[in-house]
Amino acid sequence: MPDPSETIFPEVEVFPYRGVPEATIEIEALEFTSICPRTGLPDFGRVVIRYVPDGHALELKTLKYYLLAFRNHGVFYEHGISQILEYLSQRCKPLRMTVEGHFSVRGGVRSNIRTTYEKDLRTDA
Amino acid sequence: MPDPSETIFPEVEVFPYRGVPEATIEIEALEFTSICPRTGLPDFGRVVIRYVPDGHALELKTLKYYLLAFRNHGVFYEHGISQILEYLSQRCKPLRMTVEGHFSVRGGVRSNIRTTYEKDLRTDA
Amino acid sequence: MPDPSETIFPEVEVFPYRGVPEATIEIEALEFTSICPRTGLPDFGRVVIRYVPDGHALELKTLKYYLLAFRNHGVFYEHGISQILEYLSQRCKPLRMTVEGHFSVRGGVRSNIRTTYEKDLRTDA
Amino acid sequence: MPDPSETIFPEVEVFPYRGVPEATIEIEALEFTSICPRTGLPDFGRVVIRYVPDGHALELKTLKYYLLAFRNHGVFYEHGISQILEYLSQRCKPLRMTVEGHFSVRGGVRSNIRTTYEKDLRTDA
Amino acid sequence: MPDPSETIFPEVEVFPYRGVPEATIEIEALEFTSICPRTGLPDFGRVVIRYVPDGHALELKTLKYYLLAFRNHGVFYEHGISQILEYLSQRCKPLRMTVEGHFSVRGGVRSNIRTTYEKDLRTDA
Amino acid sequence: MPDPSETIFPEVEVFPYRGVPEATIEIEALEFTSICPRTGLPDFGRVVIRYVPDGHALELKTLKYYLLAFRNHGVFYEHGISQILEYLSQRCKPLRMTVEGHFSVRGGVRSNIRTTYEKDLRTDA
Amino acid sequence: MPDPSETIFPEVEVFPYRGVPEATIEIEALEFTSICPRTGLPDFGRVVIRYVPDGHALELKTLKYYLLAFRNHGVFYEHGISQILEYLSQRCKPLRMTVEGHFSVRGGVRSNIRTTYEKDLRTDA
Amino acid sequence: MPDPSETIFPEVEVFPYRGVPEATIEIEALEFTSICPRTGLPDFGRVVIRYVPDGHALELKTLKYYLLAFRNHGVFYEHGISQILEYLSQRCKPLRMTVEGHFSVRGGVRSNIRTTYEKDLRTDA
Amino acid sequence: MPDPSETIFPEVEVFPYRGVPEATIEIEALEFTSICPRTGLPDFGRVVIRYVPDGHALELKTLKYYLLAFRNHGVFYEHGISQILEYLSQRCKPLRMTVEGHFSVRGGVRSNIRTTYEKDLRTDA
Amino acid sequence: MPDPSETIFPEVEVFPYRGVPEATIEIEALEFTSICPRTGLPDFGRVVIRYVPDGHALELKTLKYYLLAFRNHGVFYEHGISQILEYLSQRCKPLRMTVEGHFSVRGGVRSNIRTTYEKDLRTDA
Repeated sequence: MPDPSETIFPEVEVFPYRGVPEATIEIEALEFTSICPRTGLPDFGRVVIRYVPDGHALELKTLKYYLLAFRNHGVFYEHGISQILEYLSQRCKPLRMTVEGHFSVRGGVRSNIRTTYEKDLRTDA
Repeated sequence: MPDPSETIFPEVEVFPYRGVPEATIEIEALEFTSICPRTGLPDFGRVVIRYVPDGHALELKTLKYYLLAFRNHGVFYEHGISQILEYLSQRCKPLRMTVEGHFSVRGGVRSNIRTTYEKDLRTDA
Repeated sequence: MPDPSETIFPEVEVFPYRGVPEATIEIEALEFTSICPRTGLPDFGRVVIRYVPDGHALELKTLKYYLLAFRNHGVFYEHGISQILEYLSQRCKPLRMTVEGHFSVRGGVRSNIRTTYEKDLRTDA
Repeated sequence: MPDPSETIFPEVEVFPYRGVPEATIEIEALEFTSICPRTGLPDFGRVVIRYVPDGHALELKTLKYYLLAFRNHGVFYEHGISQILEYLSQRCKPLRMTVEGHFSVRGGVRSNIRTTYEKDLRTDA
Repeated sequence: MPDPSETIFPEVEVFPYRGVPEATIEIEALEFTSICPRTGLPDFGRVVIRYVPDGHALELKTLKYYLLAFRNHGVFYEHGISQILEYLSQRCKPLRMTVEGHFSVRGGVRSNIRTTYEKDLRTDA
Repeated sequence: MPDPSETIFPEVEVFPYRGVPEATIEIEALEFTSICPRTGLPDFGRVVIRYVPDGHALELKTLKYYLLAFRNHGVFYEHGISQILEYLSQRCKPLRMTVEGHFSVRGGVRSNIRTTYEKDLRTDA
Repeated sequence: MPDPSETIFPEVEVFPYRGVPEATIEIEALEFTSICPRTGLPDFGRVVIRYVPDGHALELKTLKYYLLAFRNHGVFYEHGISQILEYLSQRCKPLRMTVEGHFSVRGGVRSNIRTTYEKDLRTDA
Repeated sequence: MPDPSETIFPEVEVFPYRGVPEATIEIEALEFTSICPRTGLPDFGRVVIRYVPDGHALELKTLKYYLLAFRNHGVFYEHGISQILEYLSQRCKPLRMTVEGHFSVRGGVRSNIRTTYEKDLRTDA
Repeated sequence: MPDPSETIFPEVEVFPYRGVPEATIEIEALEFTSICPRTGLPDFGRVVIRYVPDGHALELKTLKYYLLAFRNHGVFYEHGISQILEYLSQRCKPLRMTVEGHFSVRGGVRSNIRTTYEKDLRTDA
Repeated sequence: MPDPSETIFPEVEVFPYRGVPEATIEIEALEFTSICPRTGLPDFGRVVIRYVPDGHALELKTLKYYLLAFRNHGVFYEHGISQILEYLSQRCKPLRMTVEGHFSVRGGVRSNIRTTYEKDLRTDA
């Protein structure tokens, strides 16, 4: 199993969002896979990123390469989803962002994780 | 790839809405397609237009021709959906309007966009 | 195409509702059909009537005959659904009523209409 | 068609509920059938009972026999569902109870009924 | 039928949750089975555990073994779901937790139970 | 439980079939119910009748009343389906007939029965 | 109810089929409706026409108008489907043709009809 | 894990089958569970038994108790399904019998087994 | 509407197939679109290509560009599907090939076309 | 992208199959993934292995590890599925084996591959 600290995550680019202000963008990555740090076996899931842009949007192609970097990266469900939220919300600074992971069945048990970010309007605006 | 600035969008007609005041009209275009400006390849999706009329309703046939004009038009998901909302809400001046785009899978990733317009009741009413 | 003004709509009967006061009744007519006034071709849809009775309920058999009268009646989606709401709410005077129409695909486009009636409690109660 | 007033409904037993206080219990009877008083023909449906217990829960086996007694009982949809709500809420005195009936298609028309009971906290608590 | 008081439930481990604070974790055990104390026959269901962690998360493997211990344990639906909520909420002390049981059809009747725990912020925080 | 030998089954009418010779007629009764002779409890199922007419077709309305007569009739699945096949094939003398019963879940077990009749062409033709 | 003998059925056009010889063409009319001669009430169904062309294909637009003519025509399921097969096979003289009707639920009973035509290769070829 | 050789399997009863000769009986046990001999963890699946009776049919209640005996019995998928086929075909001596097992996902892998018995007509008839 | 004779179809490449001889390859293009020559409006469908290779396989990327060329090409359903079969079977000379088109609803009517090619083993082998 | 020739595939074990002779075993790996040699991007699919054992069965755990070895292996769809069939049929020498791959959508196109092996009964038996 590769050392998680050695995974190189490519940068996700952002671009100026010029659509109407009241917008929600949802990106659903159907083929997310990472490595379970306990067993070394792959995990599979669907990752849903939903955000209200505040001037910048996530560029889809570099986002795809960022998610692909988890392929040989060892991480638990909960922490992987948190890590994606923290990184992406820091990149495009949205008004709100949710990242969900819906993982496939393991031993008759299915896991779903949802994490949420909300811009602190007192300091960011 | 055709020059997006040369696309000719036909006008969408409106007609006086004479139904009961508390009404919601939803139009779901199942066969929306446009051109990705980066790759020149076609995008496919479902566009949902939902609005509360305020005296005028969108005429379905001209609306269909308006959406067909995106067929050879190069535009990103987010901006195409914004453009439809801005144009249609300006045409029929509803109390509220939502335009959603649900696009088909590209490289294992699916995108959905939702944009919203709300009439400013202080100035329009 | 028959003249819409000549359609004879049979009366919908009502009967005293004697169930518990907090009740919602939903009637879903799966085989609604009318005539498009522009093309003379038939439209097909599902009509959903949902109401909170205030002493009277709609009798199902005469309601069915009322809806059947649209079969050779020329009317646009929006106005047909409004007409049903206005007539039925006037017949049974419910606390609230919603009438929805979910119409089948025409030229790749699907339409849904929802209209709502709320009793004015100051004057009706 | 048997005389409805002669139907014998067996008593539904209750037992002390000892689970955590914040609980919702839902019982879905998939094979409910009664007799339409107008035609003498059977009606079929799904009856859903949902309640928040307040010290007592409904015993499932006697509840099943109670619902079976409708098999040869003539009653309209709306009144049958009301009757079940009134009887069961009086038996187990829950904080809240909802009884729904979802009936099968008749002449292209489907009916759903929902009735609700809420304990009057001033007098019952 | 084994004596329920003799079932040995293995301990569920917890671990420090280091993800973002706004998170919901959902664990869906698709293959839950226990014994009906009345008939001695097995019950089958799906158990859904949903919680907002407050510093600690449930370890999935020991949680799986805990749920497996119900396999030969005699307990009614309602009390089994309550017991799981009480035990798990006491183990990981979440901000909120819901435990649901969705049981398979018995005699044409399906049962669902939902129980909820909310941390008392005055004493726990 | 009523005595099965006392059930009165109304006659099913037939009418001359004048359609093209190569035809298959399928009738699916979604709301079949009978009584389990062991427990006295109702069984529910879907009965499918499929036949190639040889001059006569089954009249739908009297067929419906025939199937309704099983409502308070005690019979096991296998024998009830056989009885329907024997009676109907004797009534309309088709080239081929299949009667299937698809019964609802009992104790986690679902039963389906299929019986078949083929005209002996040496003697009937 | 209109007199069935007065229904005017428009002619279905055919055109030379120039595709590859091994072809099957399937046309599924989702919104077929006719009148039940017994009750005068409308029937609804899905009509599927499947054929192997032998030089000529059915023109879709006139086929649609032909099927629309059943809207106010009184005919039983079995005979209506036979009539369509006989007319269409006579029009385009295919190698094989199947016409199916799948009708909606009436009184808990659903009907499906399938009729088949096969060219007599000794006389037609 | 209990010793497989100590599992006591109750006898399945048979009864004289008196329906029409051309019959197929299908029994689908939705809640089959056994123990994996390697891991000691439970397996879950759906077992389908399909047979053409030759004078005797399987009695459903004792069949259910027979399948329940696998609950704490250690056996691999393939051998468990073979064992059921061998035992049941020996009990009721059908013309043909198929036993299938459809097991739930383990580590991203799903298994299905189908075994078949055909009576040797030279010796059994 | 562009002149169909001016559409430029890019060449589909083939490559030596080195897998096992008994193979079937199925390619399902979910986003096929062409232009109806009668109305000038777009048609949408799903095209399924299924073949048994005989030494050469179709290269997916050039196949995709070939199908994209239909986007602004005017052709009827039947002839478009025939044209694809003729071209692709001539390119890779398979043992067998089937091309199907499943087109979306137009005026309540759905069309499916299936065409088949079989290598003449006397001359090609 | 790693060099395909360096992928180390672990050996799949077999064990004596002792079930009834007429058996079909189906193994469905839902989470198969490999690398596209052209783009270096991952492919995802479902691999179905179906075989009739002739004395030996595939051991599930080592089979799972064998399929996992494709995770970082570059191979085209067609050749990967052929390679699995050739290897597994050589390992357990079944009477018949089919290996299918159902791959996820790429650029609006979905691919399915089916390969088949049949034991040459003259030389192997």
